[in-house]
Amino acid sequence: MLDALFKPKSVAVIGASNKEFSIGNSVITNLLTYGYTGEIYPINPTSPEIRGLKAYRNLDEVPGLVDLAHIILPSKFVPQAMIECGEKGVKAVIINSAGFKETGQEGAKLQQEFMASARKYGVRVFGPNCQGIINTDPLLKAYCNFTNMFPKPGSVSVVALSGGVGALIMQGLVDLGVGVRIYASNGNACDVSISEIIRYLGNDLETNAIIVYTEGFADPGDFLRVALEVAARKPILAMKAGRTEQGAKAASSHTGSLAGVDIATELIFEKAGILSFTDEGDLIRAAMAFASQPIPKGQRVGIITNTGGPAVIATDVLVAAGLDVPMLSVQSVSKLRASLLPQAAVENPIDVVATAGPAHFRAALDILNEDDGIDSIFMNFVTPSFSDTQAIAREIVEVSQSGKKPIVCNFMTDIVQERFQTTQRILLDGGVPCYAYPSDAARALAALARYGRIQQRPGDAATIFADVDAAKAKAIIAAAQQAGRSILSAREVYGVFAAYGIAVAPWQVADDINQAVAAAEQLGYPLVVKVDSEAIDHKSDRGGVAVNLKDAASVRSMVADMQARLGHYGKLRFVLQKYLPGGQELIIGASVSPDLGHLMMFGLGGIYVEVLKDVTFKLAPVTHSEAEAMLASIKSAAILDGLRGKPAVDKQALINTIQRLSMLLGDLPMIQELDLNPIMAFDQGAVVVDGRIRI
Amino acid sequence: MLDALFKPKSVAVIGASNKEFSIGNSVITNLLTYGYTGEIYPINPTSPEIRGLKAYRNLDEVPGLVDLAHIILPSKFVPQAMIECGEKGVKAVIINSAGFKETGQEGAKLQQEFMASARKYGVRVFGPNCQGIINTDPLLKAYCNFTNMFPKPGSVSVVALSGGVGALIMQGLVDLGVGVRIYASNGNACDVSISEIIRYLGNDLETNAIIVYTEGFADPGDFLRVALEVAARKPILAMKAGRTEQGAKAASSHTGSLAGVDIATELIFEKAGILSFTDEGDLIRAAMAFASQPIPKGQRVGIITNTGGPAVIATDVLVAAGLDVPMLSVQSVSKLRASLLPQAAVENPIDVVATAGPAHFRAALDILNEDDGIDSIFMNFVTPSFSDTQAIAREIVEVSQSGKKPIVCNFMTDIVQERFQTTQRILLDGGVPCYAYPSDAARALAALARYGRIQQRPGDAATIFADVDAAKAKAIIAAAQQAGRSILSAREVYGVFAAYGIAVAPWQVADDINQAVAAAEQLGYPLVVKVDSEAIDHKSDRGGVAVNLKDAASVRSMVADMQARLGHYGKLRFVLQKYLPGGQELIIGASVSPDLGHLMMFGLGGIYVEVLKDVTFKLAPVTHSEAEAMLASIKSAAILDGLRGKPAVDKQALINTIQRLSMLLGDLPMIQELDLNPIMAFDQGAVVVDGRIRI
Repeated sequence: MLDALFKPKSVAVIGASNKEFSIGNSVITNLLTYGYTGEIYPINPTSPEIRGLKAYRNLDEVPGLVDLAHIILPSKFVPQAMIECGEKGVKAVIINSAGFKETGQEGAKLQQEFMASARKYGVRVFGPNCQGIINTDPLLKAYCNFTNMFPKPGSVSVVALSGGVGALIMQGLVDLGVGVRIYASNGNACDVSISEIIRYLGNDLETNAIIVYTEGFADPGDFLRVALEVAARKPILAMKAGRTEQGAKAASSHTGSLAGVDIATELIFEKAGILSFTDEGDLIRAAMAFASQPIPKGQRVGIITNTGGPAVIATDVLVAAGLDVPMLSVQSVSKLRASLLPQAAVENPIDVVATAGPAHFRAALDILNEDDGIDSIFMNFVTPSFSDTQAIAREIVEVSQSGKKPIVCNFMTDIVQERFQTTQRILLDGGVPCYAYPSDAARALAALARYGRIQQRPGDAATIFADVDAAKAKAIIAAAQQAGRSILSAREVYGVFAAYGIAVAPWQVADDINQAVAAAEQLGYPLVVKVDSEAIDHKSDRGGVAVNLKDAASVRSMVADMQARLGHYGKLRFVLQKYLPGGQELIIGASVSPDLGHLMMFGLGGIYVEVLKDVTFKLAPVTHSEAEAMLASIKSAAILDGLRGKPAVDKQALINTIQRLSMLLGDLPMIQELDLNPIMAFDQGAVVVDGRIRI
Repeated sequence: MLDALFKPKSVAVIGASNKEFSIGNSVITNLLTYGYTGEIYPINPTSPEIRGLKAYRNLDEVPGLVDLAHIILPSKFVPQAMIECGEKGVKAVIINSAGFKETGQEGAKLQQEFMASARKYGVRVFGPNCQGIINTDPLLKAYCNFTNMFPKPGSVSVVALSGGVGALIMQGLVDLGVGVRIYASNGNACDVSISEIIRYLGNDLETNAIIVYTEGFADPGDFLRVALEVAARKPILAMKAGRTEQGAKAASSHTGSLAGVDIATELIFEKAGILSFTDEGDLIRAAMAFASQPIPKGQRVGIITNTGGPAVIATDVLVAAGLDVPMLSVQSVSKLRASLLPQAAVENPIDVVATAGPAHFRAALDILNEDDGIDSIFMNFVTPSFSDTQAIAREIVEVSQSGKKPIVCNFMTDIVQERFQTTQRILLDGGVPCYAYPSDAARALAALARYGRIQQRPGDAATIFADVDAAKAKAIIAAAQQAGRSILSAREVYGVFAAYGIAVAPWQVADDINQAVAAAEQLGYPLVVKVDSEAIDHKSDRGGVAVNLKDAASVRSMVADMQARLGHYGKLRFVLQKYLPGGQELIIGASVSPDLGHLMMFGLGGIYVEVLKDVTFKLAPVTHSEAEAMLASIKSAAILDGLRGKPAVDKQALINTIQRLSMLLGDLPMIQELDLNPIMAFDQGAVVVDGRIRI
């Protein structure tokens, strides 16, 4: 448990200082200014008093127990300070000092050193090279951090590896007036990790939404497991920077750790049910909506405006984000007509017009709140000088506080004028999220709706196929491992597929021409001849594949030809395989990602993958609904449904194959890469015609 | 000229009122508050005085000349007021009143009525149903508008059809502290159009950038002509709402006019060299950068930061927008190393670190300003409590005012603290655009760079081909028109193409089997037989096309078969055409767009157009560089370069064909639709194998 870190009853500050603007001074000042309710023990070898508090020469002299200690000393003194913390029985330490792993080898050694002591004494370490934490709990008010923004208490918690972006997020929340619960920026993260903090926040009853900023994952698998569990209970809004190659380079240059699992980040977020953002402003504004609004049950938005244009802009953004601005029911329209001014537009968007008063706004809000065809309300509220905007704001707040449907408000006003500032205060104090631009407000509402969709995802588990022979597949791979081979032979690849019930076009292996002809006669024509040698990796590029051979003579001459051309690679084997024309060529593949299991890939073959890169990815294990989504999410998905009289392919067979492969990958984690390339899909069934496994 | 509207020497307000919060009162109040330097003549039949100004019972009583009159009367009185304006010699009128075309037929009639009088007397009309204009010129200070935001004078002008969005943009500019030159929101736009205002602003020496918001174009062709001319001289930043189907519906319900030319909007913006935005916040923030910064000469950005994370975010956004964050020169790196703190990162992004002082910032700025490999500077500036932020701000301003390279600044601070507010003031007063989020700042810089790319576009004119026979093509079409046909026959289509030097696969027409066989023998095999009848529109769907016929017998039996199956459509003709296998199937098409000429389309045939919608559009006339861009901009462009040993197609032949077609469309505006579908491209040449023209 991280209670000693996030809910410390007492805080020692090793390196407390009277020097203005030093970190050792800022931490003490912040604890005092923010009103920390626990004990503060400044540690300073010479000053008897820091900021009016009694200071101690060392930890040993501190009379009480110490839950949490800041260490704010030059890096070389940190290992010794850690030993002293251990001996005092300190439970958690925040190391604000820099000069460790992020600076090179020498710093890394210091980091190893203090961590050894921390482990020995059971001290949890936060940082080093970090800001610290804030817990706004009014009963605690722990500001264990050297920054200087003082958020009001609330329900949004923030985890940010980068202190700079952490501060940016806090500034944004403070500017919008969004209350914060817990803030944590853990810098080098040598012990307490992002994942562990998220788990803690998941269990924190006062946290309703979690913001995560990261530039990479030290242990993506752990992150995924934790996030899966927490995101099911409360929204996690996340942003990962370093998405572009140059961005990733910039990120790696300013942090000490972080593996590069870039391609997988979006997959992790998606699998975990995390709301992913690429714009920090959008993330912060969405958090404002999550802080007070319920999650919409569906995607249908009712818009109320008192000026036309901004509602058009909002409609564009909402629709582009997958929401709907539907026609209203006949009843709602007739109620609107009866309640609004004659010039009002009583369709969705509802334009109550600029001269509308509080009663008109209230009527429109009530009608949308009651309309079963509407899941959320977008309010566009300009403040004409001739209307009682404060009374209108009170109506919006009242309806919002019914808690029935989420409301977001684009509030266009001149805040310099006191009456409008008061109007805004009424809205914000009433928990109505307010934004300065309709697009911003629409994206915040879209984020709520996106979380609603995540909540409604089918919760199916990966299918367990009873008919697989895992032992057989393992034996095949073990044999190859023992022989020191990393590329499996065709016989092995097809054997592994067969063990998992994945259909392969009928095949046989031959060592020479006569065996090849005999095999061909047995398989029947037309057929394909492929050279099978570990030494020849891209066999079709080397003329090692011949398709549509129609008789024994062709087989004989082709095998001879390959022997002549490719014999210098060593002894050749040949695979003869039934040629199956007329199907749809597809690729299913997988590759391992460090600490994360396998990434599975699906796409159409040939030009679709090579030129159009029209492929889709999921993290294994892949469930039935996820496999279904893979088929649906490629751009050329319509081809699977049949075109120009061609029948649709057997999607169930493909979904089945993807899931069987997913189970195979789970059972055989040593597989580095695997391809079904191509797998031919027909109107009945799908059959692998070539495959490759690297272990 | 619109000088009477935008630079009025005297303003009459017909409908001036003492009633608080009425429009007739607001306009007078605004003129007084803003400090209008001309004459104000309130017109009110009963009050002798309005807001301390002498009022007149009618226009006739006004002693002086009236340049501009507001009409703020119920709509039914407006026609009479317009007559009085005409008789008084008023040059321009702003009709703030609503109740005209936007309300239905009766209102439209009133609009017609007052416009007839306006034309008779030569009065220019602004509105109706509009806000009005603002001219911030310190020598004039004309606030002829009923809103209540008071922008400071500056160089950004705003044109917004929608008053609501106009107010939103003004509020955004005022909030950011961006100075405004002229503001115009013209509502129903029955006389003075958006285009005319843009032309006026193009000639206004004090306007450096123009913001345009629209929901559609009354006359898109006129808009394009004006925008082309103005955007070549100063940046136009535009946003069109109603991009989605539902958004367009919302737009049309709240405005009285506006044709639906949605698909063409982006093409108009692109052709004109207008910077298009889909987010109003991005547009306003970009305007802030255009107001003070030079246009970068290239795409290479140098980043300076004093905290890591936000620079990573900025890098992501810049790179995704097509900019580059390149390595710095060896000289710059060694200069940085000598000038910055030892912990600083001396690569791009340059991290001067949080403890950096003014001299470090200045050194980094100077080095980037001098580095020939850098075109613009992105500054990420957090305000640590321990640094002299005001001195740092002064250094940024000084370097910015060298005017050498554009600088934008993400300024992360707690504005509540006075010292940081002062820091911000120094930056803003110094003309450094400041933003609260790194992504926002990066997008503003990207907009500057985007305008730089527009300025550098090749200015080539459409090629004029001397070898075309326009008269012949016109004669063919005139004959079809005379015969009352809208779909041209194959002979006519190919005849038109031939007249413009567009290569068609050798073809002949036959009326019966014997003619068909004779034609086949003459053309040579293999060939294609196609039925040619105006009654059969999609001939291949109806079995009216047979390919790869290899001898006379096949031709004979196929023609007989078609006659049997399709004879009920009436007398059939047949086109026999050389079958040309092995090329790349492509489509080139065109359709007419009201008031705008033709939209040309290019794409790969078959599944690429049907499923992947991988097509690209340009407005005709299409120049050589535009045709080149069309070929390059489809997603499957790599296919044109040859794949898997296939040769590249003859791009020059395609570019030539597109341009010849563009010339053809310019000469023959009566063409409604035209398709070259398919045109087969080879490594040498490209040949049309089927075509269609609808007039």
